[in-house]
Amino acid sequence: MKTMKALQWDGASLALKTVAKPEAKAGEVLVRLTKAGICNTDLEIIRGYYPFTGTLGHEFVGIVEQAPRRSLIGKRVVSDINSSCHQCAMCLAGNPHHCIKRSALGIHGKDGAFAEYLTTPEENLVIVPDSLDDNLAVYAEPLAAALEIQEQVDFSRHEGVLVIGDGKLGLLITLSLAQAGLEVTLLGHHPERLELPGLDNISFCTSPPDLKFPVVVEATGNPSGFATAVQLTAPRGTLVLKSTYKGNLAFNPAPLVVNEITLLGSRCGPMDKAVALLACGAINPAGLTQDIFPLADATRAIARANKKGALKVLLEMTG
Amino acid sequence: MKTMKALQWDGASLALKTVAKPEAKAGEVLVRLTKAGICNTDLEIIRGYYPFTGTLGHEFVGIVEQAPRRSLIGKRVVSDINSSCHQCAMCLAGNPHHCIKRSALGIHGKDGAFAEYLTTPEENLVIVPDSLDDNLAVYAEPLAAALEIQEQVDFSRHEGVLVIGDGKLGLLITLSLAQAGLEVTLLGHHPERLELPGLDNISFCTSPPDLKFPVVVEATGNPSGFATAVQLTAPRGTLVLKSTYKGNLAFNPAPLVVNEITLLGSRCGPMDKAVALLACGAINPAGLTQDIFPLADATRAIARANKKGALKVLLEMTG
Repeated sequence: MKTMKALQWDGASLALKTVAKPEAKAGEVLVRLTKAGICNTDLEIIRGYYPFTGTLGHEFVGIVEQAPRRSLIGKRVVSDINSSCHQCAMCLAGNPHHCIKRSALGIHGKDGAFAEYLTTPEENLVIVPDSLDDNLAVYAEPLAAALEIQEQVDFSRHEGVLVIGDGKLGLLITLSLAQAGLEVTLLGHHPERLELPGLDNISFCTSPPDLKFPVVVEATGNPSGFATAVQLTAPRGTLVLKSTYKGNLAFNPAPLVVNEITLLGSRCGPMDKAVALLACGAINPAGLTQDIFPLADATRAIARANKKGALKVLLEMTG
Repeated sequence: MKTMKALQWDGASLALKTVAKPEAKAGEVLVRLTKAGICNTDLEIIRGYYPFTGTLGHEFVGIVEQAPRRSLIGKRVVSDINSSCHQCAMCLAGNPHHCIKRSALGIHGKDGAFAEYLTTPEENLVIVPDSLDDNLAVYAEPLAAALEIQEQVDFSRHEGVLVIGDGKLGLLITLSLAQAGLEVTLLGHHPERLELPGLDNISFCTSPPDLKFPVVVEATGNPSGFATAVQLTAPRGTLVLKSTYKGNLAFNPAPLVVNEITLLGSRCGPMDKAVALLACGAINPAGLTQDIFPLADATRAIARANKKGALKVLLEMTG
């Protein structure tokens, strides 16, 4: 087979196309995809948030079909989405995720995972233990992004954390912070979502509490969520900006300056930690899966993911 | 004398009025003012940035006239501008500058320094050494605000810092960072200002350099300065927001999230360090003084400070 199906965005429209099967370059492996997850970033690319064109998708699990190291062939894997040059100033400073020349699968400069195959650097792979089902392993990438917050914020200094937004990202963040033993309050619209496993000790509120928090995580992706986050961050506290937004935010910077708030942008995180936490069952996001569509129905899957209140929609490449 | 002159803002207009001389409450001292400095915050209050009404002014030096401790009487002093309750959660957590019930001289809940007298808590005083002239001591408050950046940012991890804005605040920040041995680049409009003492080792540019910096300090107070600051902050870098702004900033948060930038609000700083650095001559802001007006001409002084490109305008209460 020299061709494959891929869901592509050309800057104006979205279509499932028959395209050339990708070829692994030096240092890369060829992965046959089995499952992929739809992220808000995918939806925002389609809304014009990013200049990316090509095959969408960056949350996935698959099986290595070709690899420089033969022992990898047949292994089930997930992959960090950033390809780094290892030569620029950011790479040399130990920040390959911020490589100046990086590509990011399905987001910037490299075709992604809503397809039958993709290529990715061998060094980016994390092998998925046999015990970890594809339906959970596919959450490794967004869970890693949630875990990045713990890489950036020193929680030993803080007692409580507020997460704003009970969508799929907000819930993964909440699961990860609760698993780390933190006292989490979740501000959202869906109290029934607390029934997901791992959320039994979470405080939930549907309107802003009359309380400020030393750490607030904004995961709504909308300007009113951001404004609420600024309002609920304690003086000298930290506001983690986890969402991507379409276009500009208008905000009054005075509270940030007067209250000396630290606003912290946060993106991709440690895939190995995410796989480990999923594999041992410490974090179980199974309940976040809203629906599963075959790749052939990828445009319908995107439409489903775009519906208000939708949780995670998965694509299935096999069967 | 039971009355005094004071420059007051009533929410709509500015006027030099004859008002009652303030009386020191428990724990307070009465200070006879000798010099005061006009800050952009004063100008922004007049533009409607803050709901404050009363006597403006928070940069000053004066002489203690009444005090619980008699040894203080006759001493030349400057004062931290924040009065704290010592009982709220922020005070108990060791952040009296962020006291929930605080007042701030000439900014919030307490009359300020563009007058013949003010009252301030004795605990807020820093005594001015005889060797330090009033014309320099009056810079203690804005210099403390500049020094706050060094309290918040761990510069041991960084090589270079960019300061955006060569107005009076940007120059004080530049002086303070250069004095600390940091490699400072200043982006501004007035290369001739580098002739001020202490700025001989500064790199100056009049347009954004083709380079990103691990630490950027925004001190222009205008939205285009903020946009430039976001653009010039390196991935995982820190953007210090030092200026107050009138109204909202519109900004695209994507670079903050994607580049995992830390945006840090910064306000008042350590008055004792500021006085020490001024007294030993390590920082000499004398060249920042644009003009000195008698208190009787305070409205003219404000108009002068409001002129584009103006540096520090001082008020003189005696002589």
